Amino acid sequence: MARAWYFTAYPQGLPTLDHVALRELPDQPLADGQVRVRNEYLSVDPYMRGRMTNLASYVEGFAIGEPMTGGAVGEVIESKAEGFAVGDKVMHMNGWRDEAVVDTQPGPGGMGTQKLPPMNVPIQAWLHNLGLTGATAYFGLLKTADAKPGDIVFVSAAAGAVGSAVVQIAKKKGMTVIGSAGGPDKCAWVKELGADACIDYKAGPVLPQLAAAAPDGIDVYFDNVGGDHLDAAFAVARNFARFAICGMIDRYNDAEGGVEFKYLIRTIPARIRMQGFIFTDYAEHMMEFLGEMGPWVMNGDMKMRETVHQGIGSAFDAFLGLFSGGNTGKMLVKL
Amino acid sequence: MARAWYFTAYPQGLPTLDHVALRELPDQPLADGQVRVRNEYLSVDPYMRGRMTNLASYVEGFAIGEPMTGGAVGEVIESKAEGFAVGDKVMHMNGWRDEAVVDTQPGPGGMGTQKLPPMNVPIQAWLHNLGLTGATAYFGLLKTADAKPGDIVFVSAAAGAVGSAVVQIAKKKGMTVIGSAGGPDKCAWVKELGADACIDYKAGPVLPQLAAAAPDGIDVYFDNVGGDHLDAAFAVARNFARFAICGMIDRYNDAEGGVEFKYLIRTIPARIRMQGFIFTDYAEHMMEFLGEMGPWVMNGDMKMRETVHQGIGSAFDAFLGLFSGGNTGKMLVKL
Repeated sequence: MARAWYFTAYPQGLPTLDHVALRELPDQPLADGQVRVRNEYLSVDPYMRGRMTNLASYVEGFAIGEPMTGGAVGEVIESKAEGFAVGDKVMHMNGWRDEAVVDTQPGPGGMGTQKLPPMNVPIQAWLHNLGLTGATAYFGLLKTADAKPGDIVFVSAAAGAVGSAVVQIAKKKGMTVIGSAGGPDKCAWVKELGADACIDYKAGPVLPQLAAAAPDGIDVYFDNVGGDHLDAAFAVARNFARFAICGMIDRYNDAEGGVEFKYLIRTIPARIRMQGFIFTDYAEHMMEFLGEMGPWVMNGDMKMRETVHQGIGSAFDAFLGLFSGGNTGKMLVKL
Repeated sequence: MARAWYFTAYPQGLPTLDHVALRELPDQPLADGQVRVRNEYLSVDPYMRGRMTNLASYVEGFAIGEPMTGGAVGEVIESKAEGFAVGDKVMHMNGWRDEAVVDTQPGPGGMGTQKLPPMNVPIQAWLHNLGLTGATAYFGLLKTADAKPGDIVFVSAAAGAVGSAVVQIAKKKGMTVIGSAGGPDKCAWVKELGADACIDYKAGPVLPQLAAAAPDGIDVYFDNVGGDHLDAAFAVARNFARFAICGMIDRYNDAEGGVEFKYLIRTIPARIRMQGFIFTDYAEHMMEFLGEMGPWVMNGDMKMRETVHQGIGSAFDAFLGLFSGGNTGKMLVKL
């Protein structure tokens, strides 16, 4: 019997088993245009915490009493959709479950199903550097922040899945990169990824470290963290700097508190542009992304680390692990 | 003997006579390409507080021991510049003094001198709706925020010089406009300017009032205030909302304190774009601005209020008046 993680209540702060539950899925007969997929890998990502909210305008929130969703890859085991055959490997957004029934075409109910191109890469790469992680890094850096060769780029959570990709893409594009991460081990990894410098935010306040690492300021900030990192970026931004706001992991589980900013006012004299984004905003550029990232991944030019949890039962623990600061690289669940 | 207001020390908080001084100007012989102007009106503006700082990257800061600068209009009384004759009316950026020697061509030393077109408007209009005030409103709304007909626009300090112009331009362009101002008299003026609603920030917290006035959210925020107004705008922003950050008057005189934001995190799900700007960023669009604003001003289609102080000695008091919340409309000094 297929099982899925259901969203059951809005959490205040870090979610617990009071807010999600692993349940059996009801029988799901296949409709025309749908396929049944045995999921092989699930992606758990920080942004999912943002979907566990009832803020009215958060359009993509999880629905109470429904299975959660997220990136997944697997194999078609039944098909009523033209062009999809049993045995095809696919990527879709009905994760958080071991077996998924998905529409193959994008529509109001979802983003559809992509057949994986016949590339010689591990299947989970389609959730990682060839999937939403890589696309988030690529589009956020190159489209949202409009980063150019020669730019000085600051990226927070640089040892994380998205941050690791940002560091490497920026270096391939001829940028100077300053990362931040928590602790010497993670900083060593960020340097190994090619970063010119890495700030250890556990070793002291961010701003003086960033000011020392970027004495001429920064042109681009790729934000995965918010809070003190974002304020430090405002402080050292050069004129016409661009901030791509991808995540604010330090805020996701703090529903009540505000965050203090001292340097946001530099938005005016420095003409800073701050822009939030979600990788699907750039869906029309997906081939451009795959055209660059595909060869990098196939040629082994993208270093990566993965933390892999085993079994559908571990998915929620894997998710919580994103917020403890303990993992490096991409967090995955193997089924 | 000509006199000017000199910048003498960096203030913490509201500047006083410990930080500026009215002094006689040394004799200034005219060089080739320069004109001597007897200033008739000086502009004092909130952004000037931002120039009284030594933040390293604030490129346009006032220099200690030098006369301050700012918008001014007046009459040429001596000319060594081709195309400029005694009696010409001109606009330039060497304000804060009763007599100015200015380069006529833009260069590293300044923005040059513009001969005023022969339009039948009061000369101070070139500092107000036809000058930096109107250009700031026009470019911030239509370029920085990319506001379109049908958009729901929120503008703070809507009874101020820039805010009053934003309200009217937005209404002429077919937008819904919600203003904010302090007190019932100012709110009545904002409604008279055409705003669909006006929030009195002195009557209660901004966010619940804004949420009530904009039940469907806002597409554009024109920020003159920062702080609670900006946070409220983050809270109610619709997807792909654009914020033009023009001023943060509540921050200019508070050098130490931070500002708490609870809703900045909505930048991500709503994909908000926040952009700081200065009207000179759009210098190449100046003719487009004058082409629209000129007829509006000449035809009396732009309602306006002015607070006019008399004499060079009053200029600093006029400037301080910007921060007391007492004035409505454009603050000017008549010489």
